[in-house]
Formats: sequence, C-alpha cells, structure tokens
Amino acid sequence: MDFEKIIIGIDPGTNVMGYGILGVNGKKPQMIAMGVVKLDKFESHYMRLRRIHERVTGLIEQYLPDEMAIEAPFFGKNVQSMLKLGRAQGVAMTAALMRDVPITEYEPRKIKMAITGNGAASKEQVREMLRRILAISPESMLKELDSTDALGAALCHFYETSRPIPSGGPRSWKEFIARNPDRIK
Amino acid sequence: MDFEKIIIGIDPGTNVMGYGILGVNGKKPQMIAMGVVKLDKFESHYMRLRRIHERVTGLIEQYLPDEMAIEAPFFGKNVQSMLKLGRAQGVAMTAALMRDVPITEYEPRKIKMAITGNGAASKEQVREMLRRILAISPESMLKELDSTDALGAALCHFYETSRPIPSGGPRSWKEFIARNPDRIK
Repeated sequence: MDFEKIIIGIDPGTNVMGYGILGVNGKKPQMIAMGVVKLDKFESHYMRLRRIHERVTGLIEQYLPDEMAIEAPFFGKNVQSMLKLGRAQGVAMTAALMRDVPITEYEPRKIKMAITGNGAASKEQVREMLRRILAISPESMLKELDSTDALGAALCHFYETSRPIPSGGPRSWKEFIARNPDRIK
Repeated sequence: MDFEKIIIGIDPGTNVMGYGILGVNGKKPQMIAMGVVKLDKFESHYMRLRRIHERVTGLIEQYLPDEMAIEAPFFGKNVQSMLKLGRAQGVAMTAALMRDVPITEYEPRKIKMAITGNGAASKEQVREMLRRILAISPESMLKELDSTDALGAALCHFYETSRPIPSGGPRSWKEFIARNPDRIK
C-alpha cells in the first residue's frame, strides 16, 4: 500500500529501543510496523550504540520514512543516565541526519497528552488508546511498551503537523498571519 | 610517512569539537594533524550533530586511524548539558563504530595527569606540554584549546596502551600473573 507520508517514531534507550512506523493517507494514520530492539544482551556500551545505529538505519532503508519523531525526555534522574540517553539519541539521530530525514523531538508528557488527552497517563493507557485509534489487532500488539511509546511519538507528530491550527488557536495575530499567509489580502 | 599505529583523539562538544591525529612508530608519537570544527555558526542543534558526524567520518576516511580516544567527562553541570554532550559524543562515536575503529574514553583529569603529571592542570599547561613532548612548531599550534585537548586524549591513549605495566606497577599478585603469563613457570 502506498502512503502520502511515512513517519518513523523512535523511543531510544540503552536497554531497549522501541520503534513504530506510521503511514498516513489524508487524515488517516495507519500502523505499518512496530517493534523493539533489545540491547541488554550486549555487555558493551559501544555494541549497544552500534546496534541502535544499524537498526535505525535498516528501518529507514526499509520503510523510507519522510520524517522522524523521537521521544525525548528533557529531564532525567541524574547526569549519568542523561549522558547515556544522549548518546543513544545521538546515534539514532545520526541515522536520520545521514539520510536527510527531518527530526522532531517530543517530551513523553506531550505524547501522552496527544494520544490520551492526559499528560500523566500510564504507558498502558497510551498503548490501549493507540490500539483503538489505529485499530490494531490484539495479536499485533507487543508486550514491550517501548514499541507503543515509539508509535505514540509518531502519531503525536502526525497530529502536530497535520492540524492547521493547534488547540487553542493562534496565540497572536502575528502567529495567525504566519500560519495563514493566503488569508491575508 | 608510514606509521605503525594512528590514533584519532576527539574532544566532542556542541559549540566546538577538537580533534588531533597522532602517529606512532615504536615508542615515538608524532602529531600528524590537529584542528577544531566550529559548530556555533549553525543555529540548529541537528545541523551541529550532522556536522560532527560528517567531519569525524571525513577524518577517519582521510587518516585511517586504528583507534579512537575520546575526552569524556563523567560529571557535568546539569542534566541538560549532559544530554547535549551525550548526543555529540554519540554522533562522533557512531562515525568510529561504523568503521570498526575501537573507542576508549578518558576523563579530562586522567588526560591532564598523563600529559602534565597533574590532574588539575590548566588547558594551557596541557597545550604547552604537548608542544614540548611532540616538538610541535609554534606556528602549528592553534589558539583553540579544544585542539590540544583532543590531541592530549590521543597521547594519553598512546601512553595507556603502549606501556607494559602502568605506573606504580601491578596492584596485586593476581594482576601481575595476568600481565606476565610467560614469567610464571
């Protein structure tokens, strides 16, 4: 099936990386694939980074996404975990940057809000909403929540980029003009 | 000139990235090249990451290093700066991992100790010691200290990997045996 636009969602991590591929036709998004890359079998930190890069590159070559959405927390527990997370993100981003796939980052809270209407929703709630919105068959769902987190990032990006005016409308006349150049005579 | 081993040193950052290329023949290290990649001209964070990847990949293709040494602080001011630094590191590491160049990380303190004998030395002291140790002509020195930081990482790696027994000797009998299997009858 052909799609007008394909979005790859990535939830990078150093133990498990989730991914979700979303195809869009008009206003209708559809799940093309989702899955996880298990990294904890590799003892070496570098082997994990290498694996992330290989898999993200492989997914980009396979599905040819037009855009990448990454789940990216702004705050972490400590500097050590943020450094490791930054490396995993950087490696995944490199795969996109090398193939001119534009990247957009979304905070977990923003993704939860976009999918469930509640920024504090659980990962299980995000998963259940995604299953309903995208009419995914139960057997296609994975037990790893990283896969639905990544698919959620892709769907959040679709919502953010497809609607003409964000919820609440333009915040200023200047913003309205910038968004609607054709409506100003 | 041919070298038995070539080490690329990298000091990753999101404003300036330093690099230094060290050639080794026997016990004699020699500076092949050093420089900086200025990133602050790019407003986009992603353009900076992309530039880091392109330049490190280019350096690896040009100098064909056998090993990479990265200056990598373990602690940072805050989680935000560590996340950004992690991304820059991850992108530079990817360039090495894609070409099977093994990576070793060194803390700034460790590099300073190896070059100057003082873990709290200033960047200027590291620079001056490198100039003397490697007999670099004054006109080859750059004003950007990131270049000598990176070259320092490469020289530190050479010291760490070339000497048979680290300073202070083996810390235990077990370590001595592990290092000298041929001396145990």
